[in-house]
Amino acid sequence: MTRPHSLHHINFIVRDLDLAVARYQQALGFGDPIRDELPERGVRIARYQLGETWLVLVQPTREDSIPGRHLREHGEGVFLVSLGVDKLDESIESVRAAGVGVLDDEPRRGADGWKIQDIGPEDFFGVHLQLVETS
Amino acid sequence: MTRPHSLHHINFIVRDLDLAVARYQQALGFGDPIRDELPERGVRIARYQLGETWLVLVQPTREDSIPGRHLREHGEGVFLVSLGVDKLDESIESVRAAGVGVLDDEPRRGADGWKIQDIGPEDFFGVHLQLVETS
Repeated sequence: MTRPHSLHHINFIVRDLDLAVARYQQALGFGDPIRDELPERGVRIARYQLGETWLVLVQPTREDSIPGRHLREHGEGVFLVSLGVDKLDESIESVRAAGVGVLDDEPRRGADGWKIQDIGPEDFFGVHLQLVETS
Repeated sequence: MTRPHSLHHINFIVRDLDLAVARYQQALGFGDPIRDELPERGVRIARYQLGETWLVLVQPTREDSIPGRHLREHGEGVFLVSLGVDKLDESIESVRAAGVGVLDDEPRRGADGWKIQDIGPEDFFGVHLQLVETS
């Protein structure tokens, strides 16, 4: 297995997407983000490309979604860190072989068709990691 | 002012650096990290380069340091996200002009001589952001 080769995206949970977009614009000079709505995930997002990495602002649209529960329990802040890998299936197999929990049985699709799978925060010292196949 | 152009590094606070290094190796195939000790910051670190981004594992070495307090108050997990900028002084000026708090009066030096300055987590929706001049 080859190790992750990039930090593909990082998700920040926010209560109010428009407020956050305005702050990133005003204080840091960010331009217009790409906006998406993912109803099945229960989120609206705004994303910016910073070199190889997408900075993704995520506003939950309902309380019973995973991001919605995260907001209620932990407040705003970093939600997950997604590492780019060449072959998701091989990486997930290696993660499982190491005894680390995998949250989804199968990969799911994120924004822009990203093929993603989440791995256990307990096993990575409080960091909710995700792997994403980008090639 | 030009906006941040990269996600330069991300810091994960861990209690036990060697345990974390072993897990990243075993589960994700990471090789040997670069290790540093920053006594004035009160940390030992191990870092990996993932494309443009450094993934930095940070173990506090004393409780009265900023990372040590973070560990005591919030536990392990993402500590800060550092965005690469061309001109730190100009970016910090813009951040201040937007009414956002800046934690250090002057830039400080991180691992590998990185010129860095932290900006307020309250103003970025729970995310501890840092700017780093890389050119």
